[in-house]
Amino acid sequence: MIIDCHGHFTTAPKTLHAWRKKQLEGIHSDLIITDDEIRAAVEGGQLKLQKERGGDLTLFSPIAGQMAHHLGNEQTSLVWAEVCNNLIHRVCNLFPDNFVGVCQLPQSPGAPPANCIPELRRCVEELGFVGCNLNPDPSGGYWLGPPLTDPVWYPLYEEMVRLDVPAMVHVSSSCNPCFHGTGAHYINGDTTAFMQFLLADLFKDFPTLRFVIPHGGGAVPYHWGRYRGLSLETRQRPLEPLLDNVFFDTCVYHEPGIRFLTEVIPVDNILFGSEMIGAVRGRDPNTGAYFDDTKRYVDACARLTAEERHKIFESNARRVYPRLDAVLRNRGVDAAADL
Amino acid sequence: MIIDCHGHFTTAPKTLHAWRKKQLEGIHSDLIITDDEIRAAVEGGQLKLQKERGGDLTLFSPIAGQMAHHLGNEQTSLVWAEVCNNLIHRVCNLFPDNFVGVCQLPQSPGAPPANCIPELRRCVEELGFVGCNLNPDPSGGYWLGPPLTDPVWYPLYEEMVRLDVPAMVHVSSSCNPCFHGTGAHYINGDTTAFMQFLLADLFKDFPTLRFVIPHGGGAVPYHWGRYRGLSLETRQRPLEPLLDNVFFDTCVYHEPGIRFLTEVIPVDNILFGSEMIGAVRGRDPNTGAYFDDTKRYVDACARLTAEERHKIFESNARRVYPRLDAVLRNRGVDAAADL
Repeated sequence: MIIDCHGHFTTAPKTLHAWRKKQLEGIHSDLIITDDEIRAAVEGGQLKLQKERGGDLTLFSPIAGQMAHHLGNEQTSLVWAEVCNNLIHRVCNLFPDNFVGVCQLPQSPGAPPANCIPELRRCVEELGFVGCNLNPDPSGGYWLGPPLTDPVWYPLYEEMVRLDVPAMVHVSSSCNPCFHGTGAHYINGDTTAFMQFLLADLFKDFPTLRFVIPHGGGAVPYHWGRYRGLSLETRQRPLEPLLDNVFFDTCVYHEPGIRFLTEVIPVDNILFGSEMIGAVRGRDPNTGAYFDDTKRYVDACARLTAEERHKIFESNARRVYPRLDAVLRNRGVDAAADL
Repeated sequence: MIIDCHGHFTTAPKTLHAWRKKQLEGIHSDLIITDDEIRAAVEGGQLKLQKERGGDLTLFSPIAGQMAHHLGNEQTSLVWAEVCNNLIHRVCNLFPDNFVGVCQLPQSPGAPPANCIPELRRCVEELGFVGCNLNPDPSGGYWLGPPLTDPVWYPLYEEMVRLDVPAMVHVSSSCNPCFHGTGAHYINGDTTAFMQFLLADLFKDFPTLRFVIPHGGGAVPYHWGRYRGLSLETRQRPLEPLLDNVFFDTCVYHEPGIRFLTEVIPVDNILFGSEMIGAVRGRDPNTGAYFDDTKRYVDACARLTAEERHKIFESNARRVYPRLDAVLRNRGVDAAADL
C-alpha cells in the first residue's frame, strides 16, 4: 500500500477562495459547494495523480498556504479552520478509500495554542481525522511568537498525546517580502523547528509526542553533521534520540535528494509524501516527469530493500499516525499485506 | 594550493569582546591588542588547524556572529566594522602567507547599504582585502529590511562590481528566540538569499556581480529540484544561469553532505570552505575527526577527479575573488602550480 502523508486540497473549488476573500473583508456570505464540485475538483486533481502515479491513499488537509493564520483575528482563524476542515471531511466521505483527513488548526498570532484544542478534538473525534498541521509561525514570516518548545504550546501537545495524533510542522504563506513562501519560508520553517526541538527537552516532557517535518526536513538531513555536532556541543547529548519523535517526509523534488535522504536518515524516520499539485507543479524538462512525483524517486532508489521501501510507503505512516492504522485495520487492510 | 574561502577570527583576543561590550554600553575605551596577542590567538587557533589539516591560505574576516548589525545604530556599526576590519588587517600583515582579508560591512537596520561603500573601499583599496561579508538581514532574525534584490542595494553592488570583489552572503547572530544562530538563522539566511536571487533580475542588471552562499548553500542543493521547478514556474526560465553569479562553499559538516553537494552542483560553483572554529567545534565521536574539518570530506570524495578537486580547493576561489588571484600572482603563485 502506498500512503502519501502530505497532501493538501490545493485544487479546491474557487468558491472557497471567494468565500475567504469575503470573510477577510468582513462580509458575511454562505459557502455553497456541491458534492459534484468536490468530486470534480478531486477527480481532476489529487485523485487523478494519485492513481496515475500508483498511490493508494493520501493524508489530506486544507491548503497550507491558505491557512494564513496572520490574517484577521482568532475568530477569523477559527471559522476558517472549521470551513476548511469540513470541506476536507466531505472529500474523505466521498472518497474514503483514497483520502483520510488531517486538520488545520485555528491558530492566531498571540492567541494561546490551547485554544486550538476544541477544533483538534472535533476533527479527530467527530470527523475521524488522524493528525493536524501545526504552524510554527502564525505571524506569517516574522516569527513573532515563541518557539515550538515553549510551555505555551504544552496544553495542545497534551491533547495531541491524549488523542494519539502527530502534527506535521507546516508554516503557511509568508507576508514577509524577504521570504518567498514555498521557496524560502517553508524550508526555513522546517529547519527552524528541528533546531528548536534539538535545543529543548520537549520529548522528555512528552515522550510519545510526534512531529513530521515536511519537505524532507528542510535543510536538516543535508546538514546532519552540523546538527549532530550542535547537539553534542549545546546539549551534551547525541542527536539521534530526537528521531524517536521526529520524522521527515519525502517532499524533495529530485532523485539525488531522495537518495541522499535515505542515506543519511534512518529509514524508520522517512514517510512517503509528495505534496502533489503544490509548490512545484511542472515537469522536469530533462525527464518529462513531474518534479513532485516523488514516488518515482523512491522507486528508483536502488539502495532501498523491498522491506525498507515498504516502511517508507506504508508502515512508518501507520506507526506515526496510529489512528490511520486503526482506520485501515477496520477496513481489513493488514499492516504488511502487500509486502 | 588549498584555499579556505570561509574563515572568521573567532579566536580573537577577549579584549575585543570587552571593547565591544563597552561600546554598546556607550562607554568610550581604547582597544589595545598587541601583536603578540594576535599571534597567540591565531597560532593557537586558525593557523594551527590550517597547518594540521593541510590548508595553505584562509580568506579571513571578522567574527560573523559578532557583526550584530541590529545592535546600536549606524555609527555603532561603522566604528565596530572599522575596529574589526583593522584587526583582520593586522592578522593578514602578521601572517601574509596564510591569511587574506575579507571585510565586515557597517550595515544597520534601515540604513542605506550605500553607506557601506566608504568602508568597503577602504578595506579593498587601502587594506588589500579581496571580498566582503554581506548580511541579508541586518535586523538580526526579524527580516525587517528589503530583499537583497531591492534597488536599495544597487549602489553597493555597483561598487562591488567596480572593485571586482564578491560578497559572501552571511547573516550574523539572531536576536529572535525562534532562530538559533548557527543552527537555524545561518542556514535560513542562505536559503532565503538564493530564493531572492532566483526571483529577481539582479544579474541581468549586474552580470559580473558574484555571491558566495556559505554553509553549502543552506538548503538549496538538497532541494535543487524544487528550485529548478520554481524557476521554471515563477520566472519561465531555467535555474542554471544563476550559477554564473552564485557559488557555494563546502561548510557542510559530514562526508555524505559534501558528496551530495558535488553530485548536484557543478564543480565550478563549489569553493572549499570550513568556517573552522565556528559553529561546530567538536569532534565526531564516530570518527574522532573534527566536524568542521571539511577538507577530509572533499579529499574522501571519490567521485572527484584531481582537476575537479583542484577547482574546489584553489582555482574557483581565484576566479571568484580576482583580487586574491592578483595577490597570489604577485607572489609568484601561478594558478595551476600544484595541479
